[in-house]
Amino acid sequence: MKIWQKATDSKKEVESFTIGRDPEFDLVLAPFDVLGSMAHAHMLAKIGLLTTEENEILQKGLKEIYLEIETGKFVIEPGVEDVHSQVEFLLTERYGDVGKKLHSGRSRNDQVLVDLKLYYRAAIRGLVEASTELTDLLLELAEKHKKDLMPGYTHTQLAMPSSFGLWFGAFAEGISEDLGLLKAAFDLSNKNPLGSAAGYGSSFPLDRTLTTQLLGFADLHHNVINAQNSRGKTERTLGFAVAGMAGTLNRLADDVCLFMNQHFGFIKFPDELTTGSSIMPHKKNPDVFELIRAKTNQIQAVPNTIALLLTNSTTGYHRDLQLLKEEIFPAIDSLQSCLEMTTFMLKSIQIKSDILKDSFYKHVFSVEVVNDLVLEGMPFRDAYKKVGLDIEKDDFNPDQSQLKHSHEGSIGNLNLSEIKGKLDSAILAFQFDKIDEAFNKLID
Amino acid sequence: MKIWQKATDSKKEVESFTIGRDPEFDLVLAPFDVLGSMAHAHMLAKIGLLTTEENEILQKGLKEIYLEIETGKFVIEPGVEDVHSQVEFLLTERYGDVGKKLHSGRSRNDQVLVDLKLYYRAAIRGLVEASTELTDLLLELAEKHKKDLMPGYTHTQLAMPSSFGLWFGAFAEGISEDLGLLKAAFDLSNKNPLGSAAGYGSSFPLDRTLTTQLLGFADLHHNVINAQNSRGKTERTLGFAVAGMAGTLNRLADDVCLFMNQHFGFIKFPDELTTGSSIMPHKKNPDVFELIRAKTNQIQAVPNTIALLLTNSTTGYHRDLQLLKEEIFPAIDSLQSCLEMTTFMLKSIQIKSDILKDSFYKHVFSVEVVNDLVLEGMPFRDAYKKVGLDIEKDDFNPDQSQLKHSHEGSIGNLNLSEIKGKLDSAILAFQFDKIDEAFNKLID
Amino acid sequence: MKIWQKATDSKKEVESFTIGRDPEFDLVLAPFDVLGSMAHAHMLAKIGLLTTEENEILQKGLKEIYLEIETGKFVIEPGVEDVHSQVEFLLTERYGDVGKKLHSGRSRNDQVLVDLKLYYRAAIRGLVEASTELTDLLLELAEKHKKDLMPGYTHTQLAMPSSFGLWFGAFAEGISEDLGLLKAAFDLSNKNPLGSAAGYGSSFPLDRTLTTQLLGFADLHHNVINAQNSRGKTERTLGFAVAGMAGTLNRLADDVCLFMNQHFGFIKFPDELTTGSSIMPHKKNPDVFELIRAKTNQIQAVPNTIALLLTNSTTGYHRDLQLLKEEIFPAIDSLQSCLEMTTFMLKSIQIKSDILKDSFYKHVFSVEVVNDLVLEGMPFRDAYKKVGLDIEKDDFNPDQSQLKHSHEGSIGNLNLSEIKGKLDSAILAFQFDKIDEAFNKLID
Amino acid sequence: MKIWQKATDSKKEVESFTIGRDPEFDLVLAPFDVLGSMAHAHMLAKIGLLTTEENEILQKGLKEIYLEIETGKFVIEPGVEDVHSQVEFLLTERYGDVGKKLHSGRSRNDQVLVDLKLYYRAAIRGLVEASTELTDLLLELAEKHKKDLMPGYTHTQLAMPSSFGLWFGAFAEGISEDLGLLKAAFDLSNKNPLGSAAGYGSSFPLDRTLTTQLLGFADLHHNVINAQNSRGKTERTLGFAVAGMAGTLNRLADDVCLFMNQHFGFIKFPDELTTGSSIMPHKKNPDVFELIRAKTNQIQAVPNTIALLLTNSTTGYHRDLQLLKEEIFPAIDSLQSCLEMTTFMLKSIQIKSDILKDSFYKHVFSVEVVNDLVLEGMPFRDAYKKVGLDIEKDDFNPDQSQLKHSHEGSIGNLNLSEIKGKLDSAILAFQFDKIDEAFNKLID
Repeated sequence: MKIWQKATDSKKEVESFTIGRDPEFDLVLAPFDVLGSMAHAHMLAKIGLLTTEENEILQKGLKEIYLEIETGKFVIEPGVEDVHSQVEFLLTERYGDVGKKLHSGRSRNDQVLVDLKLYYRAAIRGLVEASTELTDLLLELAEKHKKDLMPGYTHTQLAMPSSFGLWFGAFAEGISEDLGLLKAAFDLSNKNPLGSAAGYGSSFPLDRTLTTQLLGFADLHHNVINAQNSRGKTERTLGFAVAGMAGTLNRLADDVCLFMNQHFGFIKFPDELTTGSSIMPHKKNPDVFELIRAKTNQIQAVPNTIALLLTNSTTGYHRDLQLLKEEIFPAIDSLQSCLEMTTFMLKSIQIKSDILKDSFYKHVFSVEVVNDLVLEGMPFRDAYKKVGLDIEKDDFNPDQSQLKHSHEGSIGNLNLSEIKGKLDSAILAFQFDKIDEAFNKLID
Repeated sequence: MKIWQKATDSKKEVESFTIGRDPEFDLVLAPFDVLGSMAHAHMLAKIGLLTTEENEILQKGLKEIYLEIETGKFVIEPGVEDVHSQVEFLLTERYGDVGKKLHSGRSRNDQVLVDLKLYYRAAIRGLVEASTELTDLLLELAEKHKKDLMPGYTHTQLAMPSSFGLWFGAFAEGISEDLGLLKAAFDLSNKNPLGSAAGYGSSFPLDRTLTTQLLGFADLHHNVINAQNSRGKTERTLGFAVAGMAGTLNRLADDVCLFMNQHFGFIKFPDELTTGSSIMPHKKNPDVFELIRAKTNQIQAVPNTIALLLTNSTTGYHRDLQLLKEEIFPAIDSLQSCLEMTTFMLKSIQIKSDILKDSFYKHVFSVEVVNDLVLEGMPFRDAYKKVGLDIEKDDFNPDQSQLKHSHEGSIGNLNLSEIKGKLDSAILAFQFDKIDEAFNKLID
Repeated sequence: MKIWQKATDSKKEVESFTIGRDPEFDLVLAPFDVLGSMAHAHMLAKIGLLTTEENEILQKGLKEIYLEIETGKFVIEPGVEDVHSQVEFLLTERYGDVGKKLHSGRSRNDQVLVDLKLYYRAAIRGLVEASTELTDLLLELAEKHKKDLMPGYTHTQLAMPSSFGLWFGAFAEGISEDLGLLKAAFDLSNKNPLGSAAGYGSSFPLDRTLTTQLLGFADLHHNVINAQNSRGKTERTLGFAVAGMAGTLNRLADDVCLFMNQHFGFIKFPDELTTGSSIMPHKKNPDVFELIRAKTNQIQAVPNTIALLLTNSTTGYHRDLQLLKEEIFPAIDSLQSCLEMTTFMLKSIQIKSDILKDSFYKHVFSVEVVNDLVLEGMPFRDAYKKVGLDIEKDDFNPDQSQLKHSHEGSIGNLNLSEIKGKLDSAILAFQFDKIDEAFNKLID
Repeated sequence: MKIWQKATDSKKEVESFTIGRDPEFDLVLAPFDVLGSMAHAHMLAKIGLLTTEENEILQKGLKEIYLEIETGKFVIEPGVEDVHSQVEFLLTERYGDVGKKLHSGRSRNDQVLVDLKLYYRAAIRGLVEASTELTDLLLELAEKHKKDLMPGYTHTQLAMPSSFGLWFGAFAEGISEDLGLLKAAFDLSNKNPLGSAAGYGSSFPLDRTLTTQLLGFADLHHNVINAQNSRGKTERTLGFAVAGMAGTLNRLADDVCLFMNQHFGFIKFPDELTTGSSIMPHKKNPDVFELIRAKTNQIQAVPNTIALLLTNSTTGYHRDLQLLKEEIFPAIDSLQSCLEMTTFMLKSIQIKSDILKDSFYKHVFSVEVVNDLVLEGMPFRDAYKKVGLDIEKDDFNPDQSQLKHSHEGSIGNLNLSEIKGKLDSAILAFQFDKIDEAFNKLID
């Protein structure tokens, strides 16, 4: 473990310490790096820092590299520092000195910033799509099980009648609401930082509005220091967004683990989706949901790690920012797989029916009876007392077979289409098609 | 410190442990509790659970209480459990049994939920207003100091020319972007939970759409379990929003503390705004900004505390949720005072001029010189090498008096009106006037 | 809420923002401040900065103030900045200029540091005593219920036989192990920082070894910068210690909430220790344990808030450190009351007996049967398969009445006296009597 | 990214989701797994569950595997679930059915628990050794630079004279104090959990005292539920320990970054240890220390992630615990490399001498002058006023060449040997030799 014992080459040791997991993350950023360079070259041509011919060569070369990335042929060669250098190296190797001109008017700082923004936009889109798939399934399950009653709990104590329809529907609406934070993160990712150079702009007469349009950004970070400050702020906001949605999945997973407990026994999964024990032959464990619970906890921890990386630090790039990738990239992937795995599992969920018909649950009907008395004219506080006394005397035998809930969002009126509508308009607000349009124009 | 040594009355000890800081927070919620009750009573009248006459009496009584709260005459009397009980008690004492009827069709859970949502909307509005005031000042300072150059740093090392105009402008745009998270929190707060009762709805034929309109909510949490789940989710999202903005203020404060250091000496504040030392007679310390830095760290810690309170917990109300108030209420107040105090201090900021004319800073002009060579036709990579060698030979004497930055958001083109425009449209999106309208109608 | 609207007096506004909750915390520190001053005065006398007579006057004056604090007569008067100033003010008012001499050779920084260390030592002692009381009760309950079997769970699934004796005993040993972190925090608190002045020592020939002895410190922070750095490190470590113990109580509380759920129904508390519902007359909720769970989550969040306050900050006092008190003081109090409240509640716990005799639990005996087969000579893997098949065929009927567990720490051999021994030696290591000795000598 | 699109084999998808990074971590645990099995087999032989001959075969087989691990020949073969299965598989393949008997009387739960404890002990030892190396270097640098004065700062403002000797010495003592938390983590890791099976013990007459001795544990977790609860508690405590030490390194790194800033210019590193810029040819950036600062922030975030994974969960193993490895393993490695890299860099640190002779720093001598006046008889408060006025009138010209600090831990009396003594006795307390002894006996 002693890294430095054979201090043969200081420079190498420093490099190995500082490079970290960047080679891995650079491959994720590669296609976006090329797209960013395409836009930058067009802009340089427009302001006269490249000739039309030079730009055409660069566009051709960049498109080749883009296709190599798409087809898995792109690698960062040994000894090449990062994805940016690899792209520049390939261009220069293939097309000569024009490759060196590409870096005019930008810095590694705004180059990686634009790569990150483009990647985050794409990653958020992936999360939105996985959320939609899950929400659609939840709405379907809610409709299917709208008549399957179950007890509702407060304080983990039996409380009032609920239903599987209500329970599934709750998470459908919950996830649709989590898109609000994802949208806030998307809006920050959807601003152009290119042209901010090392955080203080450039003395070249750059046209930042042009690169904004070419890359399909909705806006630009106008102020160049603010563009640089968005490194960190974007990750923090995206961290909040994935943590928020993770919080919703965490509760769903925790519910599932409890409802699978034998005392409850409300839901089941096929044997091949549960796990056994090395010493207890009777066990069927909900490992997948325990791990979703745990992974969503890891995701919920991410905003705090980001805060520690960012806080008490002054304006201007610091190398510390590099490590943001180690936090937010895996968190995005983990949330993506938790969403997909939840969908995968819920497709096979099995529900126990007729739960509430058991007299074990009769007390959950107490409010119904109170309300009936109120509707017959008794003041609420008095009805409450009467039913309380009946229960205490063990003289409480409610009708456990039917419920009258009719208001918006209640057991008898799940408002599933309203929830679906909410989801649809939340997704529409992202305007993903505008990005497709811009990219198609750029690559074509 | 031994709470339980004289175990005279168990019930009392339990109460004292469980009540916590609620009496304090309940006073904050009091006006919103009354407004919520007004809307609830109107709705009960519409669905026939109150007569028109009963409703009129209740509206009159609630309005009286509202005015008592406004004028500071309202107290929660000793022995009364909470604000809800106090309001019900006053109504019953003054107008008889009709007071008892008000609780029909709702639970403490949705009652406090609606109070919280209304309070959060108002609190967010306060934060937006304080942000606007600060942003306006920052834009003013940016305009005033747009020609006052200063060095820009990367890696805390001298890097490139910057200006106070650029620096102030960065925070103006930064804060305007932080409104995105506040808007996400506002949207969650702006949904009606009333009618969700204890989280499983009611068998009364409640009209939740009516209370939504009466209270000026933009929408309702349709699913009643989801409405209950929004307790926690709303605070988490609001926690993210205050943490996000705190992150921006933290950087501003950290910059100020560094720039006040004597080695830098870029900015000053009048003596009465700095602090001395008990043993060092020469000290003038930036205590206010150190405390803003520290308070914004406390605020940034809040989302994590909220995550710990919420995670791994199943659907349905848990008493744990009560403690969310202890986290989010002080965080809101603290951010509000940090915003106001930053504005207060910056009104007196004094800027050192002509900083960059000192030859100490000549290296920050290296990129300018590189770019000039590029514009004269030298490839970027070669120009970079040439300037590097000149610096090494100590043969580097740039013109330190003028800069040519002209692109969007650069030193020479601060885009202040674009930033102001961004801020204005961000504020407009909250539609605070709709809330005023609804409340005016309700109270009047 | 606008703090600064009537900006009549800038100085005042700055003071009000910077003072925070210090007046409240200063009263907690008052007795320790006086003790620290007594030791400091003795030392000044020894090195000749005070005459013997001056020291005698100061000791007399300080003792008077100490007694006033003890009897609740001490207040920090309006306009007096803090407890240190109040003490100095009283001494000067009563005994003249000698009062002013007390501050020679120290700074507010090391003065408050020594106050904090002495307070933390006392606070940790309180926590250790409350832990002991709880552990003793748990051991008593373990002994009492050692034959009351219950199921043990893994994956929240029925797993193997357990017992209330085992369950209570687990928390007894767990808390005794948590004392390890408290000891680490105590050791840091038990080092003398006095003489470090503002963090860079003093040109006076101070005798720091003398004040170390007089205040009963086990050691000193030798290096004065390190002494100053211990502000923050001490709180961080204490934060870890309270968080660690909070983690243990959190699990106990979570178990209780689950076991009180009606599906389990393993434990009960008298009605006056549970809470009802405003709409459900049948509810008996475990609010106290839900709040212990929530409060222990708040406590577990404290180390992170402290990390945010401290991180990325350079050597030397920063005003940020003041806010550490706002985090650690309430956390100490909260853990103290959670410990006391857990003890209070567990004194009334009621256990369901004969749980495991119900055939519902027969599967938890599967490993017993496997082990029996192994003891009869069947290889473990084969026995495991046989029992698994029997269970699948529903042909599994184990003896549910007796268990043979005999090894250390198992159901049949709880090792309660070993655990008690562990606890006793953990407590002994604190050597609290040495502090008493030193203080008695100082005050007397 | 769609994991589940081609749902060919559900079981496989579940496995791939649940296995996570375990194959990687299992290789770390492999040698410890074998050692644990050796001890377990000896114990089974002693209580008659294995014959002497069977045990001898197993010991021989396990030793072979141990040597294969040591020489890098051990792999977990495709299709084999984990390290435990691989070891059992190899034994059975090579020596027949006796391999299957090894799992008697234990569960995966206590098997992995003992592996983890043994690994943590070894990892802590690595951290202690790296800390010692760093502390020794710091003490050496402190001695070497004890006369190199520098300013000390409070509030990031020039305050009082300090020295590089004092600064290096502070971190030496600081790190030695951080060993207290590592010791607390070590004590928890140094307790035997073996025999706790799945957390509820075994009906076999296990001899847990024997395995405790064989594995060199200082003690055992007596109560078997508590042994299982130590999964999580051990990681939490170790998380605290690495976070504590990370906090100390973070400050050192932050100081270095500030002192390398050109305005300060106090320290330098050779060019090959700093980093350049892609657009600014004059840059020499402190990337290594920025990354140490950032990595120590990641490490400081770990306790919180662990808290989120553990909190609000009931007694008994949950699959969530598996993910603890993903948090604590990398944190240990990261701290180890931060310690080594700090040592590596500090070996090349270059110090600016004669800093304080510059009149720029004259104010830092103000307290010296105040103290001189006090020694001449002026009361402190009056001397303070006089010097303050002199400074205000710009009539303050102190002697900047000599200092009289002589007390313990001050500039003139660094107490380096006392600090070294502290470190030595802290290390001694770990008693690492006892572990060596036990392991040598076991393997031999």
